[in-house]
Amino acid sequence: MTADLSRFSINQMTVKQLAMPELVDACGGLGVTNVGLWREPVRTYGLEATAKLVRDAGLTVTTLCRGGFFTAVDPDERARALDDNRRAVDEAATLGTDTLVLVSGGLPPGSKDLHGARERIADALAELGPYAESHGVRLAIEPLHPMFASDRCVVSTLAQALDLAERFPAHQVGVTVDTYHIWWDDTAPAQIARAGAGGRIHTFQLADWTTPLPEGVLNGRGQIGDGSIDMREWKGYVEAAGYTGAIEVELFNDALWARDGREVLAETAQRYLTHAS
Amino acid sequence: MTADLSRFSINQMTVKQLAMPELVDACGGLGVTNVGLWREPVRTYGLEATAKLVRDAGLTVTTLCRGGFFTAVDPDERARALDDNRRAVDEAATLGTDTLVLVSGGLPPGSKDLHGARERIADALAELGPYAESHGVRLAIEPLHPMFASDRCVVSTLAQALDLAERFPAHQVGVTVDTYHIWWDDTAPAQIARAGAGGRIHTFQLADWTTPLPEGVLNGRGQIGDGSIDMREWKGYVEAAGYTGAIEVELFNDALWARDGREVLAETAQRYLTHAS
Repeated sequence: MTADLSRFSINQMTVKQLAMPELVDACGGLGVTNVGLWREPVRTYGLEATAKLVRDAGLTVTTLCRGGFFTAVDPDERARALDDNRRAVDEAATLGTDTLVLVSGGLPPGSKDLHGARERIADALAELGPYAESHGVRLAIEPLHPMFASDRCVVSTLAQALDLAERFPAHQVGVTVDTYHIWWDDTAPAQIARAGAGGRIHTFQLADWTTPLPEGVLNGRGQIGDGSIDMREWKGYVEAAGYTGAIEVELFNDALWARDGREVLAETAQRYLTHAS
Repeated sequence: MTADLSRFSINQMTVKQLAMPELVDACGGLGVTNVGLWREPVRTYGLEATAKLVRDAGLTVTTLCRGGFFTAVDPDERARALDDNRRAVDEAATLGTDTLVLVSGGLPPGSKDLHGARERIADALAELGPYAESHGVRLAIEPLHPMFASDRCVVSTLAQALDLAERFPAHQVGVTVDTYHIWWDDTAPAQIARAGAGGRIHTFQLADWTTPLPEGVLNGRGQIGDGSIDMREWKGYVEAAGYTGAIEVELFNDALWARDGREVLAETAQRYLTHAS
Protein backbone atom coordinates (compact mmCIF):
# COMPACT_ATOMS: atom_id res chain seq x y z
CA MET A 1 0.00 0.00 0.00
CA THR A 2 3.07 2.26 -0.31
CA ALA A 3 1.78 4.64 -2.95
CA ASP A 4 -1.40 5.62 -1.12
CA LEU A 5 0.52 6.19 2.10
CA SER A 6 2.73 8.85 0.54
CA ARG A 7 1.17 11.62 2.64
CA PHE A 8 0.55 9.53 5.75
CA SER A 9 2.78 10.26 8.73
CA ILE A 10 2.77 8.29 11.95
CA ASN A 11 3.28 10.43 15.02
CA GLN A 12 5.37 8.28 17.30
CA MET A 13 3.19 9.03 20.34
CA THR A 14 0.50 6.89 18.67
CA VAL A 15 2.76 3.86 19.09
CA LYS A 16 4.94 4.97 21.96
CA GLN A 17 5.36 1.34 23.04
CA LEU A 18 7.76 0.98 20.07
CA ALA A 19 11.38 1.92 20.73
CA MET A 20 12.91 4.15 18.06
CA PRO A 21 14.54 1.33 16.02
CA GLU A 22 11.33 -0.72 16.22
CA LEU A 23 9.32 2.25 14.97
CA VAL A 24 11.69 2.81 12.06
CA ASP A 25 11.68 -0.88 11.20
CA ALA A 26 7.89 -1.11 11.37
CA CYS A 27 7.54 1.91 9.08
CA GLY A 28 9.83 0.24 6.57
CA GLY A 29 7.79 -2.93 6.62
CA LEU A 30 4.54 -1.07 5.94
CA GLY A 31 5.85 1.43 3.42
CA VAL A 32 5.35 4.34 5.80
CA THR A 33 7.81 7.08 4.83
CA ASN A 34 6.90 9.89 7.25
CA VAL A 35 7.16 10.12 11.03
CA GLY A 36 6.43 12.78 13.62
CA LEU A 37 8.83 12.57 16.55
CA TRP A 38 8.72 13.64 20.20
CA ARG A 39 11.62 15.09 22.10
CA GLU A 40 11.58 12.61 25.01
CA PRO A 41 11.99 9.40 22.95
CA VAL A 42 14.51 11.18 20.73
CA ARG A 43 16.53 12.00 23.85
CA THR A 44 16.23 8.40 25.05
CA TYR A 45 17.67 7.02 21.83
CA GLY A 46 20.03 9.96 21.36
CA LEU A 47 19.56 12.99 19.11
CA GLU A 48 22.36 12.29 16.63
CA ALA A 49 21.63 8.57 16.65
CA THR A 50 17.96 9.23 15.87
CA ALA A 51 18.85 11.65 13.09
CA LYS A 52 21.13 9.03 11.51
CA LEU A 53 18.61 6.22 12.01
CA VAL A 54 15.74 7.99 10.28
CA ARG A 55 18.00 9.42 7.56
CA ASP A 56 19.47 6.03 6.75
CA ALA A 57 15.98 4.54 6.61
CA GLY A 58 14.85 7.21 4.15
CA LEU A 59 12.20 8.52 6.55
CA THR A 60 10.99 12.12 6.46
CA VAL A 61 10.51 13.72 9.88
CA THR A 62 7.32 15.73 9.42
CA THR A 63 7.25 17.43 12.84
CA LEU A 64 8.95 17.52 16.20
CA CYS A 65 6.68 17.69 19.25
CA ARG A 66 6.94 19.84 21.14
CA GLY A 67 7.98 23.27 22.27
CA GLY A 68 5.87 25.79 24.09
CA PHE A 69 4.78 26.24 27.73
CA PHE A 70 5.35 29.95 27.49
CA THR A 71 2.86 31.21 30.05
CA ALA A 72 4.87 31.37 33.28
CA VAL A 73 5.07 34.76 34.98
CA ASP A 74 8.25 34.15 36.98
CA PRO A 75 11.24 35.60 35.04
CA ASP A 76 13.55 32.67 35.79
CA GLU A 77 10.92 30.20 34.73
CA ARG A 78 10.34 32.16 31.52
CA ALA A 79 14.06 32.23 30.77
CA ARG A 80 14.28 28.48 31.30
CA ALA A 81 11.29 27.92 28.98
CA LEU A 82 12.89 30.00 26.24
CA ASP A 83 16.20 28.16 26.64
CA ASP A 84 14.39 24.87 26.38
CA ASN A 85 12.55 26.03 23.27
CA ARG A 86 15.81 27.09 21.61
CA ARG A 87 17.09 23.57 22.29
CA ALA A 88 13.90 22.19 20.73
CA VAL A 89 14.59 24.26 17.61
CA ASP A 90 18.16 22.93 17.51
CA GLU A 91 16.85 19.37 17.82
CA ALA A 92 14.31 19.91 15.05
CA ALA A 93 17.06 21.20 12.77
CA THR A 94 19.30 18.25 13.61
CA LEU A 95 16.46 15.81 12.88
CA GLY A 96 15.87 17.48 9.54
CA THR A 97 12.30 18.63 10.16
CA ASP A 98 11.16 22.16 9.40
CA THR A 99 8.26 22.17 11.88
CA LEU A 100 8.26 22.44 15.67
CA VAL A 101 4.79 21.99 17.19
CA LEU A 102 4.01 24.32 20.13
CA VAL A 103 1.70 23.57 23.04
CA SER A 104 1.58 27.02 24.47
CA GLY A 105 0.89 26.40 28.17
CA GLY A 106 -1.98 26.84 30.59
CA LEU A 107 -2.72 29.33 33.35
CA PRO A 108 -0.03 29.77 36.01
CA PRO A 109 -1.13 28.45 39.44
CA GLY A 110 -3.79 30.70 40.93
CA SER A 111 -4.15 32.86 37.82
CA LYS A 112 -7.48 33.53 36.12
CA ASP A 113 -6.00 35.77 33.41
CA LEU A 114 -6.32 34.06 30.02
CA HIS A 115 -5.62 37.27 28.11
CA GLY A 116 -2.40 37.92 30.00
CA ALA A 117 -1.23 34.36 29.43
CA ARG A 118 -1.87 34.70 25.70
CA GLU A 119 0.16 37.92 25.61
CA ARG A 120 3.10 36.18 27.28
CA ILE A 121 2.97 33.61 24.47
CA ALA A 122 3.28 36.44 21.97
CA ASP A 123 6.28 37.82 23.89
CA ALA A 124 7.97 34.42 23.73
CA LEU A 125 7.25 34.02 20.02
CA ALA A 126 8.90 37.38 19.34
CA GLU A 127 12.11 36.00 20.78
CA LEU A 128 11.84 32.47 19.45
CA GLY A 129 10.60 33.18 15.90
CA PRO A 130 13.83 34.74 14.54
CA TYR A 131 15.91 32.05 16.26
CA ALA A 132 13.80 29.33 14.62
CA GLU A 133 14.01 31.03 11.24
CA SER A 134 17.80 31.14 11.43
CA HIS A 135 17.72 27.36 11.88
CA GLY A 136 15.24 26.70 9.09
CA VAL A 137 12.47 25.75 11.51
CA ARG A 138 8.89 27.02 11.56
CA LEU A 139 6.87 27.22 14.76
CA ALA A 140 3.36 25.72 14.62
CA ILE A 141 1.02 26.95 17.36
CA GLU A 142 -1.42 24.16 18.18
CA PRO A 143 -4.79 25.26 19.50
CA LEU A 144 -5.81 22.62 22.01
CA HIS A 145 -9.41 21.68 22.77
CA PRO A 146 -10.98 24.13 25.24
CA MET A 147 -11.04 21.39 27.88
CA PHE A 148 -7.26 21.94 28.16
CA ALA A 149 -7.46 25.73 28.52
CA SER A 150 -6.51 25.93 32.19
CA ASP A 151 -3.80 23.31 32.47
CA ARG A 152 -2.14 22.84 29.08
CA CYS A 153 -2.93 25.50 26.51
CA VAL A 154 -4.73 28.83 26.74
CA VAL A 155 -4.92 28.87 22.93
CA SER A 156 -8.21 27.07 22.34
CA THR A 157 -9.25 27.93 18.78
CA LEU A 158 -7.68 28.35 15.38
CA ALA A 159 -8.78 31.98 15.44
CA GLN A 160 -6.82 32.60 18.65
CA ALA A 161 -3.80 30.75 17.24
CA LEU A 162 -3.89 32.84 14.07
CA ASP A 163 -4.35 36.06 16.03
CA LEU A 164 -1.01 35.20 17.66
CA ALA A 165 0.74 33.81 14.57
CA GLU A 166 -0.16 36.73 12.33
CA ARG A 167 1.92 39.10 14.47
CA PHE A 168 4.95 37.33 12.94
CA PRO A 169 6.07 36.29 9.45
CA ALA A 170 4.49 33.05 8.21
CA HIS A 171 7.86 31.38 7.76
CA GLN A 172 8.44 31.92 11.48
CA VAL A 173 5.03 31.19 13.01
CA GLY A 174 2.03 29.25 11.75
CA VAL A 175 -0.49 26.80 13.17
CA THR A 176 -1.15 23.12 13.68
CA VAL A 177 -4.55 22.02 12.41
CA ASP A 178 -5.58 18.97 14.45
CA THR A 179 -9.09 17.58 13.94
CA TYR A 180 -9.40 16.45 17.56
CA HIS A 181 -9.13 19.95 18.94
CA ILE A 182 -11.31 21.88 16.48
CA TRP A 183 -13.95 19.51 15.10
CA TRP A 184 -16.76 21.03 17.20
CA ASP A 185 -16.06 24.60 15.97
CA ASP A 186 -18.27 25.77 13.12
CA THR A 187 -15.97 28.74 12.55
CA ALA A 188 -12.89 26.53 12.07
CA PRO A 189 -13.35 25.95 8.31
CA ALA A 190 -13.18 29.70 7.70
CA GLN A 191 -10.12 29.90 9.96
CA ILE A 192 -8.45 27.12 7.97
CA ALA A 193 -9.03 29.18 4.84
CA ARG A 194 -7.50 32.19 6.63
CA ALA A 195 -4.50 30.11 7.67
CA GLY A 196 -4.04 28.73 4.18
CA ALA A 197 -4.26 32.14 2.56
CA GLY A 198 -1.46 33.28 4.83
CA GLY A 199 0.70 30.22 4.23
CA ARG A 200 0.38 29.28 7.88
CA ILE A 201 -0.87 25.67 7.88
CA HIS A 202 2.41 24.16 9.02
CA THR A 203 1.04 20.71 9.82
CA PHE A 204 -2.24 18.80 9.67
CA GLN A 205 -2.96 16.12 12.25
CA LEU A 206 -5.77 13.62 12.70
CA ALA A 207 -7.36 12.04 15.74
CA ASP A 208 -10.97 11.03 16.29
CA TRP A 209 -13.33 12.16 19.05
CA THR A 210 -14.63 9.31 21.22
CA THR A 211 -16.50 9.28 24.53
CA PRO A 212 -16.61 8.76 27.43
CA LEU A 213 -13.49 10.79 28.05
CA PRO A 214 -11.07 9.23 30.55
CA GLU A 215 -10.13 10.87 33.85
CA GLY A 216 -7.81 13.79 33.12
CA VAL A 217 -9.05 13.69 29.49
CA LEU A 218 -5.53 13.57 27.98
CA ASN A 219 -5.41 10.00 26.74
CA GLY A 220 -8.81 9.62 25.13
CA ARG A 221 -7.97 10.45 21.52
CA GLY A 222 -9.78 7.92 19.39
CA GLN A 223 -8.50 5.78 16.53
CA ILE A 224 -9.43 7.21 13.12
CA GLY A 225 -12.93 6.06 12.20
CA ASP A 226 -14.00 5.19 15.74
CA GLY A 227 -15.55 8.54 16.58
CA SER A 228 -17.54 11.60 15.57
CA ILE A 229 -15.18 13.34 13.14
CA ASP A 230 -15.49 13.19 9.37
CA MET A 231 -11.80 13.09 8.43
CA ARG A 232 -12.38 13.62 4.70
CA GLU A 233 -14.39 16.75 5.44
CA TRP A 234 -11.47 18.31 7.34
CA LYS A 235 -8.93 17.06 4.81
CA GLY A 236 -11.07 18.83 2.23
CA TYR A 237 -10.86 22.09 4.16
CA VAL A 238 -7.06 22.09 4.44
CA GLU A 239 -6.66 21.05 0.82
CA ALA A 240 -9.03 23.77 -0.36
CA ALA A 241 -6.81 26.13 1.62
CA GLY A 242 -3.79 24.95 -0.37
CA TYR A 243 -2.27 22.44 2.02
CA THR A 244 -0.45 19.61 0.24
CA GLY A 245 1.78 18.37 3.08
CA ALA A 246 1.81 15.32 5.28
CA ILE A 247 -1.21 14.08 7.21
CA GLU A 248 -0.05 12.98 10.61
CA VAL A 249 -2.01 10.69 12.90
CA GLU A 250 -1.36 11.45 16.54
CA LEU A 251 -3.30 9.45 19.13
CA PHE A 252 -2.89 9.42 22.90
CA ASN A 253 -4.84 6.37 23.95
CA ASP A 254 -4.22 3.97 26.80
CA ALA A 255 -6.03 1.13 25.02
CA LEU A 256 -3.86 1.51 21.90
CA TRP A 257 -0.71 1.74 24.01
CA ALA A 258 -1.59 -1.56 25.70
CA ARG A 259 -1.56 -3.38 22.36
CA ASP A 260 1.29 -4.57 20.13
CA GLY A 261 2.80 -1.44 18.60
CA ARG A 262 3.37 -2.87 15.15
CA GLU A 263 -0.22 -4.04 15.00
CA VAL A 264 -1.44 -0.56 16.03
CA LEU A 265 0.76 1.07 13.38
CA ALA A 266 -0.61 -1.24 10.67
CA GLU A 267 -4.17 -0.58 11.85
CA THR A 268 -3.59 3.18 11.92
CA ALA A 269 -2.22 3.17 8.37
CA GLN A 270 -5.24 1.14 7.23
CA ARG A 271 -7.65 3.49 9.00
CA TYR A 272 -5.96 6.42 7.28
CA LEU A 273 -6.47 4.74 3.91
CA THR A 274 -10.11 3.96 4.68
CA HIS A 275 -11.11 7.30 6.20
CA ALA A 276 -8.70 9.98 5.02
CA SER A 277 -6.81 9.10 1.86
CA MET B 1 -26.88 37.87 54.89
CA THR B 2 -30.33 38.10 53.31
CA ALA B 3 -29.99 41.44 51.53
CA ASP B 4 -26.84 40.56 49.60
CA LEU B 5 -28.31 37.24 48.54
CA SER B 6 -31.24 38.87 46.77
CA ARG B 7 -29.96 37.83 43.34
CA PHE B 8 -28.45 34.51 44.39
CA SER B 9 -30.26 31.39 43.27
CA ILE B 10 -29.32 27.87 44.28
CA ASN B 11 -29.77 25.34 41.52
CA GLN B 12 -30.99 22.25 43.29
CA MET B 13 -28.55 19.99 41.43
CA THR B 14 -25.77 21.63 43.47
CA VAL B 15 -27.27 20.08 46.61
CA LYS B 16 -29.13 17.14 45.12
CA GLN B 17 -28.63 15.20 48.36
CA LEU B 18 -31.34 17.44 49.88
CA ALA B 19 -34.93 16.28 49.38
CA MET B 20 -37.28 19.00 48.21
CA PRO B 21 -38.62 19.96 51.69
CA GLU B 22 -35.07 19.96 53.09
CA LEU B 23 -33.95 22.25 50.28
CA VAL B 24 -36.80 24.66 50.89
CA ASP B 25 -36.18 24.62 54.63
CA ALA B 26 -32.44 25.19 54.20
CA CYS B 27 -33.10 28.13 51.89
CA GLY B 28 -35.37 29.67 54.52
CA GLY B 29 -32.72 29.32 57.17
CA LEU B 30 -30.08 31.07 55.06
CA GLY B 31 -32.27 33.78 53.57
CA VAL B 32 -31.99 32.28 50.08
CA THR B 33 -35.08 33.33 48.12
CA ASN B 34 -34.40 31.85 44.67
CA VAL B 35 -34.10 28.27 43.49
CA GLY B 36 -33.51 26.57 40.15
CA LEU B 37 -35.33 23.24 39.96
CA TRP B 38 -34.85 20.02 37.96
CA ARG B 39 -37.65 17.95 36.54
CA GLU B 40 -36.64 14.63 38.11
CA PRO B 41 -36.70 15.74 41.78
CA VAL B 42 -39.85 17.75 41.07
CA ARG B 43 -41.47 14.57 39.79
CA THR B 44 -40.24 12.66 42.85
CA TYR B 45 -41.89 15.11 45.24
CA GLY B 46 -44.84 15.73 42.94
CA LEU B 47 -45.37 18.67 40.60
CA GLU B 48 -48.32 20.28 42.37
CA ALA B 49 -46.84 19.55 45.78
CA THR B 50 -43.57 21.22 44.77
CA ALA B 51 -45.37 24.23 43.35
CA LYS B 52 -47.29 24.66 46.63
CA LEU B 53 -44.19 24.05 48.76
CA VAL B 54 -42.07 26.72 47.08
CA ARG B 55 -44.97 29.15 46.80
CA ASP B 56 -45.83 28.82 50.49
CA ALA B 57 -42.16 29.34 51.37
CA GLY B 58 -42.03 32.52 49.30
CA LEU B 59 -39.36 31.11 47.01
CA THR B 60 -38.95 32.26 43.41
CA VAL B 61 -38.25 29.49 40.91
CA THR B 62 -35.67 31.05 38.60
CA THR B 63 -35.39 28.21 36.07
CA LEU B 64 -36.52 24.69 35.37
CA CYS B 65 -33.88 22.29 34.04
CA ARG B 66 -34.28 20.94 31.53
CA GLY B 67 -35.80 20.44 28.14
CA GLY B 68 -34.01 19.71 24.91
CA PHE B 69 -32.46 16.60 23.36
CA PHE B 70 -33.80 17.57 19.97
CA THR B 71 -31.24 15.93 17.70
CA ALA B 72 -32.71 12.49 17.03
CA VAL B 73 -33.31 11.61 13.37
CA ASP B 74 -35.95 8.92 13.93
CA PRO B 75 -39.44 10.48 13.54
CA ASP B 76 -40.96 8.62 16.50
CA GLU B 77 -38.07 9.59 18.71
CA ARG B 78 -38.42 13.21 17.59
CA ALA B 79 -42.14 13.18 18.32
CA ARG B 80 -41.50 11.77 21.78
CA ALA B 81 -38.87 14.45 22.44
CA LEU B 82 -41.29 17.21 21.45
CA ASP B 83 -44.04 15.72 23.62
CA ASP B 84 -41.66 15.58 26.53
CA ASN B 85 -40.63 19.19 25.97
CA ARG B 86 -44.25 20.32 25.93
CA ARG B 87 -44.66 18.60 29.30
CA ALA B 88 -41.55 20.43 30.51
CA VAL B 89 -43.13 23.73 29.48
CA ASP B 90 -46.31 22.77 31.34
CA GLU B 91 -44.29 21.93 34.43
CA ALA B 92 -42.38 25.22 34.25
CA ALA B 93 -45.67 27.12 34.07
CA THR B 94 -47.09 25.18 37.02
CA LEU B 95 -43.96 25.89 39.07
CA GLY B 96 -44.26 29.59 38.27
CA THR B 97 -40.97 30.00 36.45
CA ASP B 98 -40.70 31.76 33.11
CA THR B 99 -37.50 30.00 31.98
CA LEU B 100 -36.95 26.46 30.71
CA VAL B 101 -33.27 25.63 30.18
CA LEU B 102 -32.54 23.55 27.08
CA VAL B 103 -29.69 21.08 26.64
CA SER B 104 -30.05 20.56 22.96
CA GLY B 105 -28.67 17.03 22.48
CA GLY B 106 -25.60 15.41 20.95
CA LEU B 107 -24.96 13.53 17.74
CA PRO B 108 -27.21 10.54 17.05
CA PRO B 109 -25.34 7.20 17.20
CA GLY B 110 -22.99 6.86 14.24
CA SER B 111 -23.58 10.38 12.95
CA LYS B 112 -20.77 12.85 12.25
CA ASP B 113 -23.09 15.63 11.08
CA LEU B 114 -22.97 18.53 13.54
CA HIS B 115 -24.61 20.93 11.11
CA GLY B 116 -27.57 18.62 10.49
CA ALA B 117 -28.04 18.11 14.22
CA ARG B 118 -28.10 21.87 14.79
CA GLU B 119 -30.72 22.27 12.08
CA ARG B 120 -32.94 19.67 13.75
CA ILE B 121 -32.73 21.78 16.92
CA ALA B 122 -34.03 24.75 14.94
CA ASP B 123 -36.89 22.63 13.59
CA ALA B 124 -37.85 21.63 17.13
CA LEU B 125 -37.67 25.22 18.40
CA ALA B 126 -40.04 26.30 15.64
CA GLU B 127 -42.65 23.93 17.08
CA LEU B 128 -41.88 24.45 20.74
CA GLY B 129 -41.41 28.23 20.81
CA PRO B 130 -45.05 29.21 20.22
CA TYR B 131 -46.23 26.55 22.66
CA ALA B 132 -43.89 27.90 25.32
CA GLU B 133 -44.99 31.47 24.64
CA SER B 134 -48.63 30.53 25.09
CA HIS B 135 -47.71 29.24 28.55
CA GLY B 136 -45.64 32.28 29.53
CA VAL B 137 -42.38 30.32 29.34
CA ARG B 138 -39.17 31.31 27.55
CA LEU B 139 -36.74 28.71 26.19
CA ALA B 140 -33.07 29.25 27.10
CA ILE B 141 -30.63 27.39 24.82
CA GLU B 142 -27.58 26.49 26.86
CA PRO B 143 -24.33 26.18 24.94
CA LEU B 144 -22.40 23.40 26.63
CA HIS B 145 -18.60 23.21 26.75
CA PRO B 146 -17.21 21.75 23.50
CA MET B 147 -16.15 18.63 25.40
CA PHE B 148 -19.88 17.69 25.41
CA ALA B 149 -20.41 18.27 21.67
CA SER B 150 -20.78 14.63 20.66
CA ASP B 151 -22.80 13.20 23.51
CA ARG B 152 -24.87 15.97 25.13
CA CYS B 153 -25.06 19.19 23.15
CA VAL B 154 -23.96 20.12 19.63
CA VAL B 155 -24.40 23.78 20.58
CA SER B 156 -20.94 24.62 21.93
CA THR B 157 -20.68 28.41 21.88
CA LEU B 158 -22.85 31.42 22.64
CA ALA B 159 -22.52 32.42 18.98
CA GLN B 160 -24.02 29.10 17.87
CA ALA B 161 -26.78 29.40 20.48
CA LEU B 162 -27.63 32.91 19.32
CA ASP B 163 -27.54 31.89 15.65
CA LEU B 164 -30.31 29.45 16.58
CA ALA B 165 -32.21 31.69 19.00
CA GLU B 166 -32.32 34.68 16.67
CA ARG B 167 -34.46 32.77 14.20
CA PHE B 168 -37.27 33.19 16.75
CA PRO B 169 -38.70 36.03 18.85
CA ALA B 170 -36.69 36.80 21.99
CA HIS B 171 -39.68 36.14 24.24
CA GLN B 172 -39.76 32.61 22.84
CA VAL B 173 -36.08 31.68 22.59
CA GLY B 174 -32.98 33.05 24.27
CA VAL B 175 -29.81 31.66 25.83
CA THR B 176 -28.35 30.47 29.09
CA VAL B 177 -25.02 32.13 29.93
CA ASP B 178 -23.06 29.71 32.14
CA THR B 179 -19.49 30.60 33.04
CA TYR B 180 -18.37 26.96 33.11
CA HIS B 181 -19.13 26.40 29.45
CA ILE B 182 -17.82 29.62 27.91
CA TRP B 183 -15.00 30.94 30.11
CA TRP B 184 -12.25 29.85 27.64
CA ASP B 185 -13.88 31.70 24.71
CA ASP B 186 -12.44 35.15 24.00
CA THR B 187 -15.38 35.90 21.69
CA ALA B 188 -17.97 35.22 24.42
CA PRO B 189 -18.00 38.75 25.90
CA ALA B 190 -19.04 40.16 22.51
CA GLN B 191 -21.68 37.44 22.21
CA ILE B 192 -23.03 38.33 25.65
CA ALA B 193 -23.40 41.91 24.42
CA ARG B 194 -25.21 40.58 21.32
CA ALA B 195 -27.49 38.48 23.52
CA GLY B 196 -28.22 41.39 25.83
CA ALA B 197 -28.98 43.77 22.98
CA GLY B 198 -31.56 41.30 21.73
CA GLY B 199 -33.10 40.70 25.14
CA ARG B 200 -32.01 37.09 25.03
CA ILE B 201 -30.06 36.52 28.26
CA HIS B 202 -32.73 34.40 29.91
CA THR B 203 -30.57 33.13 32.75
CA PHE B 204 -27.03 33.51 34.10
CA GLN B 205 -25.37 30.59 35.84
CA LEU B 206 -22.07 30.17 37.66
CA ALA B 207 -19.71 27.23 38.11
CA ASP B 208 -15.94 27.24 38.34
CA TRP B 209 -13.45 25.35 36.16
CA THR B 210 -11.26 22.92 38.08
CA THR B 211 -8.92 20.15 36.94
CA PRO B 212 -8.23 17.30 36.64
CA LEU B 213 -11.58 16.52 35.05
CA PRO B 214 -13.18 13.29 36.25
CA GLU B 215 -13.90 10.32 33.98
CA GLY B 216 -16.84 11.22 31.77
CA VAL B 217 -16.23 14.92 32.63
CA LEU B 218 -19.83 15.57 33.69
CA ASN B 219 -19.42 15.91 37.43
CA GLY B 220 -16.31 18.06 37.67
CA ARG B 221 -17.88 21.51 37.98
CA GLY B 222 -15.93 23.34 40.67
CA GLN B 223 -17.20 25.29 43.66
CA ILE B 224 -17.14 29.06 43.07
CA GLY B 225 -13.68 30.39 43.83
CA ASP B 226 -11.88 27.04 43.56
CA GLY B 227 -10.94 27.33 39.89
CA SER B 228 -9.82 29.42 36.93
CA ILE B 229 -12.84 31.64 36.32
CA ASP B 230 -13.12 35.26 37.40
CA MET B 231 -16.81 35.35 38.34
CA ARG B 232 -16.97 39.13 38.72
CA GLU B 233 -15.56 39.59 35.23
CA TRP B 234 -18.39 37.52 33.71
CA LYS B 235 -21.00 39.12 35.97
CA GLY B 236 -19.71 42.42 34.64
CA TYR B 237 -20.27 41.30 31.05
CA VAL B 238 -23.89 40.24 31.58
CA GLU B 239 -24.66 43.36 33.60
CA ALA B 240 -23.11 45.59 30.95
CA ALA B 241 -25.43 43.78 28.53
CA GLY B 242 -28.41 44.78 30.66
CA TYR B 243 -28.99 41.62 32.67
CA THR B 244 -30.44 42.27 36.11
CA GLY B 245 -31.88 38.83 36.88
CA ALA B 246 -30.93 36.03 39.22
CA ILE B 247 -27.44 34.54 39.40
CA GLU B 248 -27.80 30.81 39.72
CA VAL B 249 -25.06 28.52 41.00
CA GLU B 250 -25.26 25.09 39.41
CA LEU B 251 -22.55 22.58 40.32
CA PHE B 252 -22.33 18.90 39.41
CA ASN B 253 -19.66 17.61 41.71
CA ASP B 254 -19.31 14.22 43.35
CA ALA B 255 -17.26 15.63 46.24
CA LEU B 256 -19.93 18.23 47.04
CA TRP B 257 -22.68 15.62 46.76
CA ALA B 258 -20.88 13.44 49.30
CA ARG B 259 -21.07 16.18 51.94
CA ASP B 260 -23.93 17.44 54.11
CA GLY B 261 -26.28 19.29 51.77
CA ARG B 262 -27.10 22.13 54.16
CA GLU B 263 -23.41 22.76 54.73
CA VAL B 264 -22.80 22.84 50.96
CA LEU B 265 -25.68 25.26 50.46
CA ALA B 266 -24.32 27.60 53.15
CA GLU B 267 -20.82 27.37 51.65
CA THR B 268 -22.15 28.06 48.15
CA ALA B 269 -24.03 31.14 49.32
CA GLN B 270 -20.89 32.37 51.08
CA ARG B 271 -18.76 31.74 47.98
CA TYR B 272 -21.27 33.71 45.92
CA LEU B 273 -20.98 36.63 48.33
CA THR B 274 -17.18 36.47 48.27
CA HIS B 275 -16.65 36.02 44.56
CA ALA B 276 -19.70 37.23 42.69
CA SER B 277 -21.86 39.66 44.66
